[in-house]
Amino acid sequence: MAAIPKTIREAGSAGEEAKDELTRLAEGHLVQPWPVSGSIGAEARGRLEAGEGIYVTDAAGRRLIDGPAGMWCVNAGHRRKELADVMAAQAMELSYNSPWYTTNAPSAILSKRLADHAPQGVDHVFYTTGGSSAVETALRFMQFANNVKGRGEKKLIVSRQGGYHGSTYLSASLNGRPRDHDWMDSASDQVIKLACPNPFRRPDGVGAAEFCDYLVAEFRNVIETAGAERIGAFIAEPVMASGGVIVPPDGYLFRMRELCREHDILFIADEVVTAFGRLGHVFASQDVFGLDPDMITFAKGVTSGYFPLGGVMIAGRLLEELRRSNHSEAMFAHGLTYSSHPIGCAVALKNLDILEGGLLEHARAVSSHFQSRLKALEDLPLVGEVRGMGLMACIECVADRVSNNPLTLDLEVGKRIDGHCQELGLLVRPLINMCVMSPPLTITQAQIDDMADILRRGIELTMDDLAREGLWRG
Amino acid sequence: MAAIPKTIREAGSAGEEAKDELTRLAEGHLVQPWPVSGSIGAEARGRLEAGEGIYVTDAAGRRLIDGPAGMWCVNAGHRRKELADVMAAQAMELSYNSPWYTTNAPSAILSKRLADHAPQGVDHVFYTTGGSSAVETALRFMQFANNVKGRGEKKLIVSRQGGYHGSTYLSASLNGRPRDHDWMDSASDQVIKLACPNPFRRPDGVGAAEFCDYLVAEFRNVIETAGAERIGAFIAEPVMASGGVIVPPDGYLFRMRELCREHDILFIADEVVTAFGRLGHVFASQDVFGLDPDMITFAKGVTSGYFPLGGVMIAGRLLEELRRSNHSEAMFAHGLTYSSHPIGCAVALKNLDILEGGLLEHARAVSSHFQSRLKALEDLPLVGEVRGMGLMACIECVADRVSNNPLTLDLEVGKRIDGHCQELGLLVRPLINMCVMSPPLTITQAQIDDMADILRRGIELTMDDLAREGLWRG
Ligand SMILES: Cc1ncc(COP(=O)(O)O)c(C=O)c1O
Ligand SMILES: Cc1ncc(COP(=O)(O)O)c(C=O)c1O
Repeated sequence: MAAIPKTIREAGSAGEEAKDELTRLAEGHLVQPWPVSGSIGAEARGRLEAGEGIYVTDAAGRRLIDGPAGMWCVNAGHRRKELADVMAAQAMELSYNSPWYTTNAPSAILSKRLADHAPQGVDHVFYTTGGSSAVETALRFMQFANNVKGRGEKKLIVSRQGGYHGSTYLSASLNGRPRDHDWMDSASDQVIKLACPNPFRRPDGVGAAEFCDYLVAEFRNVIETAGAERIGAFIAEPVMASGGVIVPPDGYLFRMRELCREHDILFIADEVVTAFGRLGHVFASQDVFGLDPDMITFAKGVTSGYFPLGGVMIAGRLLEELRRSNHSEAMFAHGLTYSSHPIGCAVALKNLDILEGGLLEHARAVSSHFQSRLKALEDLPLVGEVRGMGLMACIECVADRVSNNPLTLDLEVGKRIDGHCQELGLLVRPLINMCVMSPPLTITQAQIDDMADILRRGIELTMDDLAREGLWRG
Repeated sequence: MAAIPKTIREAGSAGEEAKDELTRLAEGHLVQPWPVSGSIGAEARGRLEAGEGIYVTDAAGRRLIDGPAGMWCVNAGHRRKELADVMAAQAMELSYNSPWYTTNAPSAILSKRLADHAPQGVDHVFYTTGGSSAVETALRFMQFANNVKGRGEKKLIVSRQGGYHGSTYLSASLNGRPRDHDWMDSASDQVIKLACPNPFRRPDGVGAAEFCDYLVAEFRNVIETAGAERIGAFIAEPVMASGGVIVPPDGYLFRMRELCREHDILFIADEVVTAFGRLGHVFASQDVFGLDPDMITFAKGVTSGYFPLGGVMIAGRLLEELRRSNHSEAMFAHGLTYSSHPIGCAVALKNLDILEGGLLEHARAVSSHFQSRLKALEDLPLVGEVRGMGLMACIECVADRVSNNPLTLDLEVGKRIDGHCQELGLLVRPLINMCVMSPPLTITQAQIDDMADILRRGIELTMDDLAREGLWRG
């Protein structure tokens, strides 16, 4: 076998002789998420070969801490024999049944167990295959319910700058991250975007104390301008994940929820990232934020990434309203072949056993160490802010600490830090000028120390590089 | 444990004492596809407990032939130990990696193997979690590519009446089955629908011989009226599945393809049902119809339903055009957490081994027996037409053979036949006045005979019921 490219994302630029056969196959035949035109259909990303606990092993045999837990999802860690076994066992029992005509035991049991963890009354589940389809389900349900209720004009969706909700046409239309829309079409006439609730990047002239008032006033304004009778739903990640781990100001979620209630606007908490232990609880809405949304979308951690499962929790009250409507024949023409998949639900049940059996507690116990070890990186001059909650955190790099200007996108400082960290044994999730960390919940205090030490070294090496290249003065 | 409801779909109306605990959990907490308002969130469908080969076992312990193979997906049959084993083995190797930053061996290898089966040049794959997300990917790719090419107006999508393409907002907008849109919102301004290419229900005054000309002329007309510069894609199932197994007239697909080529309209073959052996080949486009689409969407049979995987095959030429464009920085901001899932791709590889290892050949060998045994049901006066191809078929019931009027929707004859067949040991997929059959490809000649015998008896019993109730005169 030929030599293998060393760093992730560099395979594409490595010489032909350095590529192995698998790299050639990926380059020649595979298209992965978020490619740029210049290399679409002709790039290979660095290959991972194996996982174990919080570690993954790359094609060069290097063992790396999986800093982002895959993509915020491998909550129970890699290579969990219980999860592998339950998949095989359920496959040998009932591997599939059509949810159009039949049901299965794992989905019935899982629904009850999820309802028990969700806020009071949010007690029904519609299953999908991931986060985007969960969000689509929530939105299409809102549209359907308002059609049945005879208020077909109440359909606008309010989301936020910085949010991420998926990669289907409608769910992606809610996204508010820079660059997400530059070359993509979206249903922009159906969506209104509010400001990002990021205290670190609040609008000029808005003080820290008044920032929450500002955000709530903005929403109230939008409701007045567009008309409550035209707004169907507000969707929000309790803590914005891919937008850079944005923890909103105190009271924000509660006050936004009250505005929704006042105007009969459905509050959809997008807990695709924050649920299943990431913030120490199965769902974060109620248990962390005292929030009672109308719907909660989930995915990722529900199966620790072992199986594509997602869904939306729906308040029973909303379904009852439909049952009592004058249109009992109205059909919610929505559902996926893989809704309520028996293997997915069986994996989720076992994963819930693991969470309830001590992992949630462990996650809560190590969170403060995780947060404080990362927070300490703020002494590095490249670091503008370290923020986070539970087992999710973001290190945001800036050009200088006085202006807090983000480093220009072209520098891709996150990617530079990732490169160094990989050499040192840590996989980072780079996001332009940020590094996002969300390790498997099984991480120990000692492993958190390793992670923080590597990050510090990786950032230091990046500062050296930038200074040497004359790109940054520190 | 209390007594268990006997027939599928009747659990909801059974007395409280007849319900077991699992039924209560499903009723209280689970929402499944296509519910009606009157029972949404308060119904339980009949439970399946186990599968084996072409059979499933329901909660009452009855063994039923799985007539629809789940939902056109359990192609390799239930309880395949190879598939269960490979899931567990891959989960213990690498259960997940983020496709944003990394890649894995199974997806690279699968891409190459799929490309080898696809029409020449259709050699790249973007993976998703099912059919809807595959269709979304194809459509968003078309939008993106046309934006990069500076022809942002070329975005309309042409689909057909009777087609089914998914359950996300945009993919569902393409659907053209009766009742799909009554209460649902759709992006109707982005979609143009052509007539259903169903020879059995062709428009009044159009003869059998000229029907194909009529359909092609209609498309040509639409292109002229809307303008080729505004039409981005044409999407078609080679054989319409959920619309009632509509085999188009000879030459139709080829001529529609030529029109697309002439006007630079992408031809998307939606092979979610027709691929992976349903018509005897891995992909049907080229091998059955001599068609070379620009993109092929697939799902279902690719994993025989054991794991939510789908994707879209993309002609390498389209990617090359993007690489050569003036906008190398343009980002295709699209992708799912579970794109290129290592376990899904490992299951698909093993499933492909099974297909290539004799199952495709077997499917081709038994198809004619399957078709002729079902075709023979046309002697029953309730049956208007039996049609099909490969291992998919539809029995369409009519009020009378002279007018071929479909039985009124309210009679739900398909559901009545299903009820009788279940008592006799066969699960049917009822579709209003039709029964759709698409068994696991492993079905033997003798099992096909069983299936056909039960169907005949089920239809006879239904005729008796309808006559007795004075609803039908035969
Ligand atoms: C908050 C949130 N919602 C929705 C999604 C979409 O999930 P998926 O990629 O599984 O479709 C994501 C994915 O990262 C997410 O972070
Ligand atoms: C032809 C076709 N396309 C797309 C889909 C949607 O697939 P899924 O339900 O996996 O999203 C289906 C589902 O039945 C289908 O039959």
